[in-house]
Amino acid sequence: MNPKIITLGEIMMRLTPESNQRFTQAASFGAVYGGAEANVAVSLAEWGFDVSHLTVLPDNDLGKAVIKSLRKSGVKTDLIRTQAGRLGLYFLEVGAMQRASKIIYDRADSAFANLDPDQFDFEEIFKGVDWFHWTGITPAISENAYQLMLKAIKAAYKQGVKISADINYRRNLWQYGRNPLEAMPELMQYSTLMVAGETDLENCAGIAANDFQSACVKTKEKFPKIKYITTTIRNSISATHNQLEGILWDGEILRSKNYDMPGIVDRIGGGDAYIAGLIYGLNYFEPQKALEFAIAASVLKHSIHGDANEITVEEALMLVEDKNVGKLLR
Amino acid sequence: MNPKIITLGEIMMRLTPESNQRFTQAASFGAVYGGAEANVAVSLAEWGFDVSHLTVLPDNDLGKAVIKSLRKSGVKTDLIRTQAGRLGLYFLEVGAMQRASKIIYDRADSAFANLDPDQFDFEEIFKGVDWFHWTGITPAISENAYQLMLKAIKAAYKQGVKISADINYRRNLWQYGRNPLEAMPELMQYSTLMVAGETDLENCAGIAANDFQSACVKTKEKFPKIKYITTTIRNSISATHNQLEGILWDGEILRSKNYDMPGIVDRIGGGDAYIAGLIYGLNYFEPQKALEFAIAASVLKHSIHGDANEITVEEALMLVEDKNVGKLLR
Amino acid sequence: MNPKIITLGEIMMRLTPESNQRFTQAASFGAVYGGAEANVAVSLAEWGFDVSHLTVLPDNDLGKAVIKSLRKSGVKTDLIRTQAGRLGLYFLEVGAMQRASKIIYDRADSAFANLDPDQFDFEEIFKGVDWFHWTGITPAISENAYQLMLKAIKAAYKQGVKISADINYRRNLWQYGRNPLEAMPELMQYSTLMVAGETDLENCAGIAANDFQSACVKTKEKFPKIKYITTTIRNSISATHNQLEGILWDGEILRSKNYDMPGIVDRIGGGDAYIAGLIYGLNYFEPQKALEFAIAASVLKHSIHGDANEITVEEALMLVEDKNVGKLLR
Amino acid sequence: MNPKIITLGEIMMRLTPESNQRFTQAASFGAVYGGAEANVAVSLAEWGFDVSHLTVLPDNDLGKAVIKSLRKSGVKTDLIRTQAGRLGLYFLEVGAMQRASKIIYDRADSAFANLDPDQFDFEEIFKGVDWFHWTGITPAISENAYQLMLKAIKAAYKQGVKISADINYRRNLWQYGRNPLEAMPELMQYSTLMVAGETDLENCAGIAANDFQSACVKTKEKFPKIKYITTTIRNSISATHNQLEGILWDGEILRSKNYDMPGIVDRIGGGDAYIAGLIYGLNYFEPQKALEFAIAASVLKHSIHGDANEITVEEALMLVEDKNVGKLLR
Amino acid sequence: MNPKIITLGEIMMRLTPESNQRFTQAASFGAVYGGAEANVAVSLAEWGFDVSHLTVLPDNDLGKAVIKSLRKSGVKTDLIRTQAGRLGLYFLEVGAMQRASKIIYDRADSAFANLDPDQFDFEEIFKGVDWFHWTGITPAISENAYQLMLKAIKAAYKQGVKISADINYRRNLWQYGRNPLEAMPELMQYSTLMVAGETDLENCAGIAANDFQSACVKTKEKFPKIKYITTTIRNSISATHNQLEGILWDGEILRSKNYDMPGIVDRIGGGDAYIAGLIYGLNYFEPQKALEFAIAASVLKHSIHGDANEITVEEALMLVEDKNVGKLLR
Amino acid sequence: MNPKIITLGEIMMRLTPESNQRFTQAASFGAVYGGAEANVAVSLAEWGFDVSHLTVLPDNDLGKAVIKSLRKSGVKTDLIRTQAGRLGLYFLEVGAMQRASKIIYDRADSAFANLDPDQFDFEEIFKGVDWFHWTGITPAISENAYQLMLKAIKAAYKQGVKISADINYRRNLWQYGRNPLEAMPELMQYSTLMVAGETDLENCAGIAANDFQSACVKTKEKFPKIKYITTTIRNSISATHNQLEGILWDGEILRSKNYDMPGIVDRIGGGDAYIAGLIYGLNYFEPQKALEFAIAASVLKHSIHGDANEITVEEALMLVEDKNVGKLLR
Repeated sequence: MNPKIITLGEIMMRLTPESNQRFTQAASFGAVYGGAEANVAVSLAEWGFDVSHLTVLPDNDLGKAVIKSLRKSGVKTDLIRTQAGRLGLYFLEVGAMQRASKIIYDRADSAFANLDPDQFDFEEIFKGVDWFHWTGITPAISENAYQLMLKAIKAAYKQGVKISADINYRRNLWQYGRNPLEAMPELMQYSTLMVAGETDLENCAGIAANDFQSACVKTKEKFPKIKYITTTIRNSISATHNQLEGILWDGEILRSKNYDMPGIVDRIGGGDAYIAGLIYGLNYFEPQKALEFAIAASVLKHSIHGDANEITVEEALMLVEDKNVGKLLR
Repeated sequence: MNPKIITLGEIMMRLTPESNQRFTQAASFGAVYGGAEANVAVSLAEWGFDVSHLTVLPDNDLGKAVIKSLRKSGVKTDLIRTQAGRLGLYFLEVGAMQRASKIIYDRADSAFANLDPDQFDFEEIFKGVDWFHWTGITPAISENAYQLMLKAIKAAYKQGVKISADINYRRNLWQYGRNPLEAMPELMQYSTLMVAGETDLENCAGIAANDFQSACVKTKEKFPKIKYITTTIRNSISATHNQLEGILWDGEILRSKNYDMPGIVDRIGGGDAYIAGLIYGLNYFEPQKALEFAIAASVLKHSIHGDANEITVEEALMLVEDKNVGKLLR
Repeated sequence: MNPKIITLGEIMMRLTPESNQRFTQAASFGAVYGGAEANVAVSLAEWGFDVSHLTVLPDNDLGKAVIKSLRKSGVKTDLIRTQAGRLGLYFLEVGAMQRASKIIYDRADSAFANLDPDQFDFEEIFKGVDWFHWTGITPAISENAYQLMLKAIKAAYKQGVKISADINYRRNLWQYGRNPLEAMPELMQYSTLMVAGETDLENCAGIAANDFQSACVKTKEKFPKIKYITTTIRNSISATHNQLEGILWDGEILRSKNYDMPGIVDRIGGGDAYIAGLIYGLNYFEPQKALEFAIAASVLKHSIHGDANEITVEEALMLVEDKNVGKLLR
Repeated sequence: MNPKIITLGEIMMRLTPESNQRFTQAASFGAVYGGAEANVAVSLAEWGFDVSHLTVLPDNDLGKAVIKSLRKSGVKTDLIRTQAGRLGLYFLEVGAMQRASKIIYDRADSAFANLDPDQFDFEEIFKGVDWFHWTGITPAISENAYQLMLKAIKAAYKQGVKISADINYRRNLWQYGRNPLEAMPELMQYSTLMVAGETDLENCAGIAANDFQSACVKTKEKFPKIKYITTTIRNSISATHNQLEGILWDGEILRSKNYDMPGIVDRIGGGDAYIAGLIYGLNYFEPQKALEFAIAASVLKHSIHGDANEITVEEALMLVEDKNVGKLLR
Repeated sequence: MNPKIITLGEIMMRLTPESNQRFTQAASFGAVYGGAEANVAVSLAEWGFDVSHLTVLPDNDLGKAVIKSLRKSGVKTDLIRTQAGRLGLYFLEVGAMQRASKIIYDRADSAFANLDPDQFDFEEIFKGVDWFHWTGITPAISENAYQLMLKAIKAAYKQGVKISADINYRRNLWQYGRNPLEAMPELMQYSTLMVAGETDLENCAGIAANDFQSACVKTKEKFPKIKYITTTIRNSISATHNQLEGILWDGEILRSKNYDMPGIVDRIGGGDAYIAGLIYGLNYFEPQKALEFAIAASVLKHSIHGDANEITVEEALMLVEDKNVGKLLR
Repeated sequence: MNPKIITLGEIMMRLTPESNQRFTQAASFGAVYGGAEANVAVSLAEWGFDVSHLTVLPDNDLGKAVIKSLRKSGVKTDLIRTQAGRLGLYFLEVGAMQRASKIIYDRADSAFANLDPDQFDFEEIFKGVDWFHWTGITPAISENAYQLMLKAIKAAYKQGVKISADINYRRNLWQYGRNPLEAMPELMQYSTLMVAGETDLENCAGIAANDFQSACVKTKEKFPKIKYITTTIRNSISATHNQLEGILWDGEILRSKNYDMPGIVDRIGGGDAYIAGLIYGLNYFEPQKALEFAIAASVLKHSIHGDANEITVEEALMLVEDKNVGKLLR
């Protein structure tokens, strides 16, 4: 039977000018719906996991559009609640050549930020669940979202659910009063898998280290329940040409192949595709293969429009074996 | 020399699904920038007035896009201030046949709503100005916006500027604490030209009347500085088929021709085109012709994409005389 | 609890040249997925029914796209099987003015047509189901599809499931050997609700009559289990201007309002929206209101792109009461 | 065997802003290639005539694009010559509702205007040809084009070719020195079929009359070779709603049905479609049916994007008999 | 006088999601018409050959669209027959980066597959013809298509027509019963020019060899009429970055320049452009230059949307000489 | 206070087939308005200079569209005059890979070419102006344009305005009679900053030299008022992959970084962006930094659609310091 997973997090509307236009040139914007956690949900649902995403949406047609978008990818939406309010959104200007991409966030005061953490019965929700995935974005949004996170993580841990945490430190969030160094460690400690670079660990857990290896050792000392720590290394040659590599620590450092990625179609969601790949991989493969699968999934994501990674397990595995690359499959 | 006019009000981004799609179907949204007062500004600038629009915008690329959009139409932007914050926006679903059009507003807590009313030196601003136009939307947004309105109107009046007020009562605004019945009369009293239907007068000035004529008489009693009161009567047969007529009270009731409008392209801004037409008309024509010009401008606006009315004075005058209708002009 | 319904039928890809272009002009085709039965499924799922659609699809990415499309609308897809083969498709040229719309069918030899009727355990499938909807298209496709239909209907009837049959006689189908006059009556006899005009009844049941009322009486005599017979009357003034009315016989003739529909956006699926409306209506309202709801749902469908009817129960009920027609809802 | 026809005239690029946008709004322009005579050629080629179009084009890729466009419709292009120079073009702004459509011509000094009339051996060209069609636009362009016309018409007449002339008086042309009243009669006198309204006859032949019937009688007196005179009557209710009727004089006045045309897709080329219809009709039908065929072809043209009339003989004949109007043909 | 050539083969509709979208994301598909043989026809017609394409098409508007498409490029269509049936089609998903492109074929049971081979009088058809081009796709489609091929090749050979054969072995075809190893040699033996890689030769002629040179020697032994054997070597670095080189054997091995092709626009038809280039080249140049011309034509094809190679002889020759590469030609 | 600059030159409409289509494939053309001098104006206005562009436009809606386009970018348009005539235009086919881009000019006999040089009071115009920018295109267009240039340059010099001249020799212009070698030196001699490569200097000033350094020395000898001479070196690897470097002579040769530019979005206006960058830079920075700023601005221009360079001073400075390259700025 397929693993049962719950993901939790805000979903936003992403508005992108077409054809590399600048914000000041755009007369029309492509729209997709996504979020760091929901993107993981979509990948895993496409790959056969039994996935429910928990979130709060505005009770209007944009909220409805989000639900339709999740359902299309096979993510279950029965844990979603709606209430009056707005849908968070962000504007993405896609760069080109040396010109950087830009994001203008407009997510403050969303229905999600104003959610009531007590409307969810997490004991009930986590029954029979195998895995729970959250990110450091949620507790950074609002006190309510932080409280929700705290309840959810504790309930998940109590039910024996494995937990993955994408620390994802965002300096521009954390406006509501809490300090990440105080708030995050309590949430992070229950994780089996942690996605975190050195900056994340420093800003959210006060762990300073000279390199990723020693940062991992210190993290393990501080959070002994952790089994895996992972991050990606991205080299941005230009807006459409990056190089990507994954690192997984499970006591020692494993490194993936390094991929060259000219001609990127859409890099948003690339990190979420990696995390989904790792969750999938650690359920089915040994760690090195899980890592290679994850980075391959992430590389292929860069060839797909939108936040969601519409590729199959077989396609990612083929890339791991360097097969079919750039071919014409008849 | 052309009349010098200042308009004041918030500008929002309008996001519209293409080709009559519903919100839940849309993968892309057309974007234009507009507002009830800025739309008046654009019409008058296109027609040769010397127009400045005063507003507050976010200090990001979307704010810049608004400024470019105004400049393109010839509206002066030197009275615009920017500050941190968001751009208000709204989503418009264009109906078809019997299916109604829908708007989802997302304008709360914008840079405009949070503006500092004291950053404008209105005495200076209104020197040499002939006309000032505002709407009842602004004082409904926030206490700051209300204070701005109060200062602006008083300064304008003091400088002998003629004032037009589009009452435009919006039940969903007025969330910040003030009651329109208390706030509005003080602002309305200085108007020369008032755009208001019976509902507006009842909700904003407590004037109840059986018909428009008596409502006008009572309004004049209450606000003796008023010279003209006007409104339009719209009959919505379907989302793309309306009928439109203008009424102007200047002691007695004047009525315009009634236009049949099948095949509407875009009705947003139709009312603002009417008001601009009336301001233009009352500067150049006697009242009946001004009214006919205004309604013709509004009818033609319904054939134009976007909030702004890209038609010429000559085109509107031709329609007044029923010339060139539906022709192929070589 | 919401009614549980199963719909059964082939789903095709519809390819439509954009902007009223002719087939010989088109350089690009819009694509949607639909079928007479699946369109009913989508409406009912959008309105809260618990709907599963049963079909057979090709085991390729187009089959996958069909499943995603159903899921997006909330239709359950666990009864769907896939096998090698092609997806049936049709090309739709949308007419304009006096120029008629045209369909080129290309559905022969699809995966559905070649399905194995024995792979479905209908006794199991129909447990706890309230309603089953099928159309006369399925038994007209192939012997296999006919056998599937026979098994499904008998099993449904045995389990006490209410059955609606959209007779939908298509002269161009029925190529595989069976004569509709021999094949259809056995399938039709179990229906509670039959959608059939006089031509359908004559060609599929040999019932000749001078008018719809007498045709209904004769049908009831022949198929005594039938409770309702219904059809719509469409007057095609032009490709984008039709008039529509519904008739429902439940012993006597009930007629709906007659709607004028200029400016049609997409008429495909209009009949299916009507049937869905009637199934919904007969579950919640008395017959006259059910009929008015059904025709209103169908009228609104004509304002929606695609086969599927993305309108809400509330919107249809508003139209029944002639409210909000062509308005701008803020 | 199908009639062999030669058409002669300039072909221009038409540039049209999309979706009813105004010139000042347009960021992109649809492009088609057409001309009054070439549009006739295309209709007749689509309907099975053996058609060659004679013109002069620039020797660049735009000239090549024109040739490809003609070939696509089955018009022979071996009589076309190329030379250095520009392609004439015009900008078309499509109106909406009461707002008129506008054309900005930019055709001066084209390769066609500068053609060498002596490069064509018309005696050779007209051998075995049944019909020659020209318009009053050509002699209005330049002295060279006028000389070409003179040679062509005389040679055609000498070879016994039937001649149709679309007088099509354009006040804005005739800039090169000749007066139409002097130039045109010599060219017109050889026509069998003349397309001309009262204004055309007055401006090009000095024939003043109170009504079309007497204008025709006077024209016949002046040009005794003429057998048929025809025109259409267009009532422009709005930019997208016209009414259309044809009149054919062959000694007496014949009138066609009057068609109501709401929802016009593209009216450019509507007159040319009518002329093609009449040439076709007079070759195969008696005059009244020819007239009905011509007006039906013209009506259907209004439902087609572009200058060219992509409809079949069968479709026009169906409309003559009022069949299939607005239907969905499966 | 320009060489007269006949090409023979099926033409299909190609449906491609726009902007690198996956099949499961696409809401619209670009449509072009092409086939391995017709693509050769188009190139040669653009370059001035007198080309007729022989095929069988459905007698509907899609068949008509194919004819218009060929005519546009200057290919003669008088050898085309139509009959009831469907147009073969295929769906192309264009890859990006490491993600491969995918084709879903849907060509079974087309009008072409069901053609009547006796309706063509090949003795008559090949009179005065200089060259005949066919591919191994046709005999792989159906028994009827195989029989057609056999008749055509024999008649062509009998008339002294030079024959080029693109072996093009497709494992997924050959479903109707014949074994390529038995069917193909009889057809291949009459070729002057054979396009075949080692796999083609092994699967269609049972020729196994260690390298291309020895495969060619063995092929010449088996089919002594052959004068040239050719193939291309493609290195697929990614979906949009390939490298390409041509090899021509005429007793000894000639190799072309190797081209680096980042930023591919459309690789479909690249091989056909090469073959057309070689046929053109062998008619006008000595072998090495013919080969360089062919590979340059193929490289430029990769910069053109659609199957057809809209480049000129001059452009390909410029590339052979490494001139104008990537320049801005004013 | 920001520098006040006047630019002078023709503005044309640029029509570009979409998505790398060839002219012969295009059914629609993107439209932007630009010119070598106006592009400089736009950059400088975006960067805060007080810029007026002087030109003559047709008195139609296309002329109006040009004005709106300038205003949008903040360029003042009060020095613009309109008259009867046409707007010059050019067609741009964007190349791909090895395939070159192509321009078809269609600018002859424009309103600008026919301008009346005496309608401008240059003494008045240049009062208080800091800088004047012109190019060698203008005197190449017509005698009138040459006379305008002569008057303008002399008046500017007389008022002490600094002058930059982009020599920009175009062999295809200069059709009206004057020889550049006679006409240009008189105009060039007043320049402070000259943009000219060796070819420009040879063709317009008769300066032949072995390298850029010696060409500059000779130019300085001939035109002693010159302070800076500059040019760019472009290496065109393919249509979308160029390399770019700037050279500035101010007595000695300064060279900028050499930028690699794969994935070019739009190279038109790249040179104008460079010139604008240099004018800006020489006003605010020392020469080497000015040069680096200019080339960075030009590189970034290649990532922007349209002629105009919508980038900020900050973005260009960041690139100078190699910061943010290809990043995702949140």
